[in-house]
Amino acid sequence: MAKDVKGIMILKGEDIAGWYEQVCLKSEVADFGPSKGTMVIRPRGYFIWEQIQKFFNENIVDKFGVENAYFPLFIPESFFAKEASHAEGFAPEVAWLDKELTGDGERLAVRPTSETIMYDSYSKWIRSYKDLPLKINQWCNVVRWETEATKLFMRSREFLWQEGHCVYETFDECEADTLNYIKAYQNLASELLAIPTILGQKSEKEKFAGADHTYTIEAFMPDGKALQCGTSHHLGDGFGKAFGVKYVGKDEKEHTPFQNSWGLSTRLIGGMIMTHSDDKGLVLPPKVARNKIVIVPLLFKGKEEGVLKVARDLKKKLKKFGVILDDRAEYKPGAKFGEWEMKGVPLRVEIGPRDVEAGEVVVVKRNDGEKISIKVGDVVGEIPGILDRMHDEMLAKAEKFFSEKVVDVSSVEDFEKVIKDKGIVRMNWCGDSDCEVKIKEKTGATTRCMPIKKSEVGSRKSEVEAGEGKCLFCGKENSCLIYFSRTY
Amino acid sequence: MAKDVKGIMILKGEDIAGWYEQVCLKSEVADFGPSKGTMVIRPRGYFIWEQIQKFFNENIVDKFGVENAYFPLFIPESFFAKEASHAEGFAPEVAWLDKELTGDGERLAVRPTSETIMYDSYSKWIRSYKDLPLKINQWCNVVRWETEATKLFMRSREFLWQEGHCVYETFDECEADTLNYIKAYQNLASELLAIPTILGQKSEKEKFAGADHTYTIEAFMPDGKALQCGTSHHLGDGFGKAFGVKYVGKDEKEHTPFQNSWGLSTRLIGGMIMTHSDDKGLVLPPKVARNKIVIVPLLFKGKEEGVLKVARDLKKKLKKFGVILDDRAEYKPGAKFGEWEMKGVPLRVEIGPRDVEAGEVVVVKRNDGEKISIKVGDVVGEIPGILDRMHDEMLAKAEKFFSEKVVDVSSVEDFEKVIKDKGIVRMNWCGDSDCEVKIKEKTGATTRCMPIKKSEVGSRKSEVEAGEGKCLFCGKENSCLIYFSRTY
Repeated sequence: MAKDVKGIMILKGEDIAGWYEQVCLKSEVADFGPSKGTMVIRPRGYFIWEQIQKFFNENIVDKFGVENAYFPLFIPESFFAKEASHAEGFAPEVAWLDKELTGDGERLAVRPTSETIMYDSYSKWIRSYKDLPLKINQWCNVVRWETEATKLFMRSREFLWQEGHCVYETFDECEADTLNYIKAYQNLASELLAIPTILGQKSEKEKFAGADHTYTIEAFMPDGKALQCGTSHHLGDGFGKAFGVKYVGKDEKEHTPFQNSWGLSTRLIGGMIMTHSDDKGLVLPPKVARNKIVIVPLLFKGKEEGVLKVARDLKKKLKKFGVILDDRAEYKPGAKFGEWEMKGVPLRVEIGPRDVEAGEVVVVKRNDGEKISIKVGDVVGEIPGILDRMHDEMLAKAEKFFSEKVVDVSSVEDFEKVIKDKGIVRMNWCGDSDCEVKIKEKTGATTRCMPIKKSEVGSRKSEVEAGEGKCLFCGKENSCLIYFSRTY
Repeated sequence: MAKDVKGIMILKGEDIAGWYEQVCLKSEVADFGPSKGTMVIRPRGYFIWEQIQKFFNENIVDKFGVENAYFPLFIPESFFAKEASHAEGFAPEVAWLDKELTGDGERLAVRPTSETIMYDSYSKWIRSYKDLPLKINQWCNVVRWETEATKLFMRSREFLWQEGHCVYETFDECEADTLNYIKAYQNLASELLAIPTILGQKSEKEKFAGADHTYTIEAFMPDGKALQCGTSHHLGDGFGKAFGVKYVGKDEKEHTPFQNSWGLSTRLIGGMIMTHSDDKGLVLPPKVARNKIVIVPLLFKGKEEGVLKVARDLKKKLKKFGVILDDRAEYKPGAKFGEWEMKGVPLRVEIGPRDVEAGEVVVVKRNDGEKISIKVGDVVGEIPGILDRMHDEMLAKAEKFFSEKVVDVSSVEDFEKVIKDKGIVRMNWCGDSDCEVKIKEKTGATTRCMPIKKSEVGSRKSEVEAGEGKCLFCGKENSCLIYFSRTY
């Protein structure tokens, strides 16, 4: 490790929270902000967010005909009151502007989410069925006044996200897209970030405040806690009624349209770091790494020039991979290896005098340490395949971990044991909110989601997969399948 | 004009403020938000901002080795106090969070600009000359509690911008980049938005609060008012000292580095709309128009099919230009022409039965109404050239307007007359702040900028162009050239 750069001092297996914070800070993806609950996303971290934005804009915004826009940060207090359960859901965490600013006017909230302010505009813009569907997304910052301890990317008073808000003539049309978006999120998580997730419907208790129903993708972290990675809410026509969103249909009568809202945030970056990184530091899925390769020449006295010539030549050829040539004379190779491993550069290319003689280089994969000897002339051609393989390996490893964590249980004792062992429970459940509360009180676990019937996906409000017996806890009939775990 | 879509009812030459607001609202680029001073950037407007971001990230961020990042929205009150003139400059327009949120902690400001919070982080991150230069940019929202009337894009309590903040070892290195950035802004304004600007240095009175000196690009609106389109501030080492940003140099001694900050905002979109648009509505430089072409088939009874076949075929071939085929049967061609002209689509392709027989279409340019007959087979090939020519024509027209507005004056009477006639004054001036205040009191005009010596640009703190006589107002010697005008 280069002088002044200290490595990760905490082991992932011993203190995952401490380890995670060190990885974020020392790999320079993020830092704490000066006031409580805030964070700085440093360039190495923001690059990851830009890749998420790019993937999202290409594969979701463009694909589904959504348009990006921008709505105000400040929301009048009266807007929250219009949809009662929404207001209640967000009340505890809203940050307000100093009253003196608005004089005798009403209080202004810093947006915790933008349903209310966007639908106020929609009520002015939408007149006829010809204006539908209306599909708008915004990239912005939101504020929720958390009181629990700050966790970089995972829990902070301000975070960055996108929120999509669409309006449709029919419930079914809205439902189809609500599912399209959550499936697109699942695809983004696995294709870009190598994070496997389960897709399902939230329980009544856990659904979005004001929604008809909510779909979610949930990832599972190494400590057995679930991380909600993206949600898509079918809002029914409740918000439309509350905000006076109406359209005149082909039948020349006035109707209230159906709406959905859906979001994913910088929290996803936290989930990615926690899933893949190790005791040496950051491990990045290659697609989101700005510097995909570092070349470390092994310099022995008198043989420097031959090695550096090959290194400099390779650097030119690997430019599109954001290659770094670490030719600093003052550090030993081992120190350089440690620094770039900690910062999560996916591939290290080692070039020593013997390699030069053999016309080869050694390529080392960050995810598993595998070393590959490659002829110098083949490096440029082979790199893309190696990076793709690394992505697949990281995803497969995470999928294996996840599938081993899920346990089908058939008794309350088993349930408690699985949760205690940091596992995920899959079981039959009645769907009752009271039962859910009791389970949480007894075990600390909450519902993640109910898998939805594959046959129904995309057609209409999907039904959840039926269980094969009574509710494990309360014994009620007509159960459904559900996942329980502890959560972030 | 299609039914329900009313055209622009106010003439640009009669009431430019009223005309401007109608153009923004009716072309659907923006809307007013629900609380005073706020605005909604609608998809047609946000697309323009995305093109600015793309151009900027490619031609400024990537070109100059800047990295994007994100810093917190909330800034502790004590940070403002650290740089006295900065605090004073922004005090009147800072929005504060409700004190109850932070309990006994200090007040939090909603960022009006991010020098203070970023340099607090810099003081932790920068240790050695090896950490320099540090070049960071962020895209974000900022809040300034304006009390004057809201003007879409031009004056609102929240707006979007980018702010670059860089740190260098030497004054000269910092100066070179400070000029690089302002020149890159000027290039963006003309190359992307077809807005001509003058580049120069701000007077002592008009420079950024806390800066050593400020460069600006200024555009001139049709009403003779100047619009500041982008600024680049050389901050000297004042902020570095205030925030404890220090580095150990190659000499192993501790030094305070030099810094610059530079920004451009969504205001630029307002300047673009005001510069190019006309009594029919929005006129967009083709590079920022999402829908660059609308095809309007001229449908005569019995001849619909032949016309529609050509139209549909062309639509497929013009997909990459975001083409719209307006085949709505319920509207007449004239109504459609009006609607798309109002919304600023650069090219209209008309196809009638006679065109089909002749194997031609008529292409109509939004900027000047020029009609061009083109063989159907040549349309795809000729469009890019026509769009490029439109950009050049729009820029040339704006440049001509600007050069005709600038008047070299040699008496106070002439000065007053030019300003009254909505012109721009260029004259010899002493550079004294007292004199500047007196001129403003007498004429309503303020200093725009002092052109900088071409020979000095990019090398070191550029000197401003010398005047050829005494100050026109106070008669002091050693004058410099300067522009005066009224401003937004």
